[in-house]
Amino acid sequence: MHIDDIETPAVLIDLDIVERNLKAAQDYADQHGLKLRPHVKTHKLPRFARAQMALGAIGITAQKLGEAEAMADGGLADIFLPYNILGAGKLARLKALHDRVTLSVTADSLVTLAGYAATFTDPSNPLAVLVECDTGAARCGVQTAEQAVELARATAASPGLRFGGLMVYPKRGGTADTQIWLSSTVAALTTANLPPPVISTGGTPDMLRAAEVTLATEHRPGTYIYNDRMQVAWGHGTWEDCALTVLTTVVSRPTPIRAILDAGSKALAADLAPQGGHGRITAYPDAIITGLNEEHGIVDLSACAERPIIGERVRVIPNHACVVTNLFDRVYLIRGTQVEDMGEITSRGKLT
Amino acid sequence: MHIDDIETPAVLIDLDIVERNLKAAQDYADQHGLKLRPHVKTHKLPRFARAQMALGAIGITAQKLGEAEAMADGGLADIFLPYNILGAGKLARLKALHDRVTLSVTADSLVTLAGYAATFTDPSNPLAVLVECDTGAARCGVQTAEQAVELARATAASPGLRFGGLMVYPKRGGTADTQIWLSSTVAALTTANLPPPVISTGGTPDMLRAAEVTLATEHRPGTYIYNDRMQVAWGHGTWEDCALTVLTTVVSRPTPIRAILDAGSKALAADLAPQGGHGRITAYPDAIITGLNEEHGIVDLSACAERPIIGERVRVIPNHACVVTNLFDRVYLIRGTQVEDMGEITSRGKLT
Repeated sequence: MHIDDIETPAVLIDLDIVERNLKAAQDYADQHGLKLRPHVKTHKLPRFARAQMALGAIGITAQKLGEAEAMADGGLADIFLPYNILGAGKLARLKALHDRVTLSVTADSLVTLAGYAATFTDPSNPLAVLVECDTGAARCGVQTAEQAVELARATAASPGLRFGGLMVYPKRGGTADTQIWLSSTVAALTTANLPPPVISTGGTPDMLRAAEVTLATEHRPGTYIYNDRMQVAWGHGTWEDCALTVLTTVVSRPTPIRAILDAGSKALAADLAPQGGHGRITAYPDAIITGLNEEHGIVDLSACAERPIIGERVRVIPNHACVVTNLFDRVYLIRGTQVEDMGEITSRGKLT
Repeated sequence: MHIDDIETPAVLIDLDIVERNLKAAQDYADQHGLKLRPHVKTHKLPRFARAQMALGAIGITAQKLGEAEAMADGGLADIFLPYNILGAGKLARLKALHDRVTLSVTADSLVTLAGYAATFTDPSNPLAVLVECDTGAARCGVQTAEQAVELARATAASPGLRFGGLMVYPKRGGTADTQIWLSSTVAALTTANLPPPVISTGGTPDMLRAAEVTLATEHRPGTYIYNDRMQVAWGHGTWEDCALTVLTTVVSRPTPIRAILDAGSKALAADLAPQGGHGRITAYPDAIITGLNEEHGIVDLSACAERPIIGERVRVIPNHACVVTNLFDRVYLIRGTQVEDMGEITSRGKLT
C-alpha cells in the first residue's frame, strides 16, 4: 500500500527513522554505562517496546496501570510504573500485574505506601517501590532528603515491599540541580543503611546529557523514538529525526493566503510548542498552522512562495507526538512511501 | 453503582443537567421559529442524538464522515455533514451513506463540487449541497456573494446534486456581521433564481442570539449539551449548566500548596480557556490547575482555605468538553451520585 492510498487524517511512523533514533539512544547509554528503560507512553506499541528491549533496554516504563497491563499482554516482562497507585480497585490490579511480570512502582507519600504495604504482604515476592523525588520539576516527589529516608525506611519495614531506589523526573535543563539533590539524598540514605539500588532519571530533551547525572543508574526517555516539534525546539534532534507525521488533506483554500487541513485539535492535539503554531508542514516549512478547530487546521500561507492546492496531501510534524498517538486507534508503519504494517494502539485511552 | 466506585480518571455526564440544557435550547428555537440541527461532535452518543430529535430537532450535524456513519449505525436518519469531502475513498463512503440516510454536505470550491458531481449522478435521488460561507470566522467558506452564486449555479447544473442552501460557522459575537453578509448573498442568489432553501448557522456561544440572524432557518449548536469552562467564560451558561466533569484522584500533595491529579493532558486535553488554567475543580473553586503533563494535573492551592488530601476524589469541569469526550472510550451517565448507565463513544477517534 502506498501512503497516497491512506485516508486522512492518519498517523505515519517512518520505521527507518525510528530504528535510527532507538539505536542512537542505546549507543549513548552503552557508551556511558547507563541503562535504558524506555517510556512507552509515546508509542504505546508492544512491538516497539520489544524492539527497544532487543537493542539492550533493561525493561520498560509505563505511566498508567492500563498502559502497563497492555504491555504485559504484549509480552513485556519488566515494567516500571512511576506513579502513585491509590485505591482498592487499582491496588488489586497492581497485585495481579505483579503476579505476571517483574514490576516496580513509586511512592512519594506514606499514604501511597500504606496502600502498597496493605496489598503486598508476601516477603518471598516483594514489590519494589522507588521513592519519587522532586529535584526541580515541581510535579510529584518528596521535597527533602529526610522525607526520602523516611519513605525508604517505611518501605524497608514492610514485609511485602522492597526499597527499590530513587526515581526522578528532572526539570528540563536541570541536570546539575538533579545531581546535587541526589548527592545529598544518596548520602543520607547510605548513612541510614538504605543505599538506593536504582536511581532512575527521565526525559528526552536531556537524554543525551543523562550521564551528567553521574549517580543515575538508568534513564527513561520516551519521546526520543519519534521526536516532534517541541523536541526540535529544545535542541533534541532535527526535522530529519522526526518519525511521526500526521498525513492530512488540504480541504479548502478560501483565500490566496489561507489553507484548511482536515486535521484539527482532535488529530494534532492542542499542545503548544515554543515556536508557536500547531505543527510543521514538511513540504511547506514556511506555512504557519495558526489555529486548530476540532476538525480543521487553519494555515497561513503568507510566507510561502509555493502553495498547496485543494485536495493536496501534506504531512505535519506535530508539536507533541505522544498526545497525537493517543488520539488514534492505529498508526501506519512506513518505509519511504510504502506502508509496511499497521500498529494498533491497544492502550490508547487506557487512562486508569 | 455509586460514583465513588468508578476508577479515575473518568468522564461523568450529569443527565439532569443534560436534559435541562437540551430543553432550554429547543425552547429557545421553538420560541423564535428556528429549527435546531444539533452537532453531535460534543457527545458522539447516538442516544443523545435521538434525545435531541425527540425534543424537536429536525436532524443532526456531524463533522466527519466516520462520525456520520456511526450516527447512521445508531439510527439517526437525517444527517448534515458540513465539510468538504474529497478523495475517491471518502466519496465512495459518502455515496454509501447517502443510500442509507437523508444526507446533506457542503462545498466551498469547484474542486469539491466536481467530486460530488462525478460521484452522484442519479437525478431521482440528488445529494443536497450547501455552499459554505465565511462571514468572518476565517475558516472555510466562500468569501463573496459572487462565489456563492457561482457554486450554487454549478450545483444546480449537476444532475445528481441539489442546491441545498447556505451554511455558516459564524465568528463568535459575529451575529450582526453574519446577517449583513447573508443579506447580500441571499439577494444575489434570488436574482440568479437560486433562492437558498436552507440557511444554517452554528455555534453554542451565540446560540441564544441565533435568532438575531433573521435569515437563518436552522442552527447547529454542539457544546450546549454539556457546556464547559470556555462556554462559561464566553457567557453561555453557568457552572451549574456544566454537565460533563472529569472525575480524578489527588495522587500526591508534595507541598502545602501543590496537589497532583491523575488527570493530565491525555484526560483533560490541552485546549486553553480565557480564564487561564486547565479546568475548574468543583469542590475547590479557588484551586488553579496550572499545568498538565500527559498523566498529571498540577494544581496550585495557594488561594484555597480548605485543601484536598491524598486519595481524595475531585471533579473537574474541563476547558473544552468536546475534546475530552474524544479522549475516552466511554462515559458514565449519572444522576446525582449514582451511575445510571454507560455511554460508549463509538465514533471516538473516527477522524476520517
